[in-house]
Amino acid sequence: MYKETNRRSIVKGISWRVIATGTTIVIVYTFFGRLDLAIAAGLIESVLKVGLYWAHERAWFKVRWGRKKIEPFNLWFTGLPLSGKTTIADAVYKELQKLDIPLERLDSKDIRDVVPNIGFSRDDRNRHMKRVGHLVKTLQNNSISTVCSFVSPYTESRKVIREMVQNNIVVYVKAELETCKKRDYKGAYEKALKGEYQNFTGVNDTYEEPQHAEIVIDTDNLSVEQASKIILKLVQERYVK
Amino acid sequence: MYKETNRRSIVKGISWRVIATGTTIVIVYTFFGRLDLAIAAGLIESVLKVGLYWAHERAWFKVRWGRKKIEPFNLWFTGLPLSGKTTIADAVYKELQKLDIPLERLDSKDIRDVVPNIGFSRDDRNRHMKRVGHLVKTLQNNSISTVCSFVSPYTESRKVIREMVQNNIVVYVKAELETCKKRDYKGAYEKALKGEYQNFTGVNDTYEEPQHAEIVIDTDNLSVEQASKIILKLVQERYVK
Repeated sequence: MYKETNRRSIVKGISWRVIATGTTIVIVYTFFGRLDLAIAAGLIESVLKVGLYWAHERAWFKVRWGRKKIEPFNLWFTGLPLSGKTTIADAVYKELQKLDIPLERLDSKDIRDVVPNIGFSRDDRNRHMKRVGHLVKTLQNNSISTVCSFVSPYTESRKVIREMVQNNIVVYVKAELETCKKRDYKGAYEKALKGEYQNFTGVNDTYEEPQHAEIVIDTDNLSVEQASKIILKLVQERYVK
Repeated sequence: MYKETNRRSIVKGISWRVIATGTTIVIVYTFFGRLDLAIAAGLIESVLKVGLYWAHERAWFKVRWGRKKIEPFNLWFTGLPLSGKTTIADAVYKELQKLDIPLERLDSKDIRDVVPNIGFSRDDRNRHMKRVGHLVKTLQNNSISTVCSFVSPYTESRKVIREMVQNNIVVYVKAELETCKKRDYKGAYEKALKGEYQNFTGVNDTYEEPQHAEIVIDTDNLSVEQASKIILKLVQERYVK
């Protein structure tokens, strides 16, 4: 978040003065036909008005009227491990940053890195979702929108998020299990299949498909760029005007 | 967080125009002695410049230069249960809100309400601190300062916070155990003494006094108002200019 520095207000004042005095000189010259007097009037005006403009600018900086609270949204990417959630969420986040809106990126991995051993049982996952929901809500209280990517395999955990936050947009990143396994550069599916991982979604834990996702991205048929465009279009139409 | 609406820019343009055209009329009249022409020039100028000012304002709204990133701080209140942390933190938060800085209040109770059964063992508490630290850090990434009140009885948990966040200000709310017990309107100490609560700080769990607190508030000798003033003074000197 930013505040306007005094220097910015001063330079703004000067840039405006160049435009404004130019206009005044032209008008006075048109009326009186005396360029020397028109310029003299313009110069005197300049000196006076730079100070006046500065005072005006600082006064308005204190007035809150007309400053509209930014409406935050929550983009929630759900899907099987390696379905492409993080990749697409990263691409969307990058595009959204260009719009200069307050924004935070939350990825499952980052949070599990900070607090390890959260666990992957149904209860662990739901408690984890509550914490993430609280984090998103606290950010939203401060007008910050969020781009979140979490497997979030259970209907109830996604419901917890929907109830805690505002302007929730669920993006279901759909991929065939076989596709995910093929993308398995980390060897996670392999380990799960060997029984090294417990509660691995898609192998020994269920993924309950979202029934009310705002957006469904079929990664078997869409590129990251195409997916990103679809999501950005909806966000821009609804929340960034 | 706020954005400037188009309406605000328009009204700002008009308010400035009243000041500016007034000045122009006075100057032109002084130079040429013709009030009618001075007013005519002023009026034409007005019409032209309202539009120009609006365009200038919108252009500057897009320019980021001179918008200074707000430096967030973290006020961290630590102390025995019922030492007065929440009360003083609330008072300080209320005063800080008047300064119109982005601010969030985090209290132990609020977070434990969202995610119950966090536990009070040393390990549970430290993990909890990590989560709170992550929350504060994420808020700080977005220029939001925080006012936190947590018993945070262990040196290591307070150290976790100090390492995770920036501009950390530890406020040690000091009160004799006897004073806390007297303030025990919830009957928490009583229950702990009866053995109903495990790991209750001050009864069956230790409180490790902070050795490097930025501020120590002796609640046995200071009122809430006095404490609040001391804390605000430091915050304003260091972080709010």
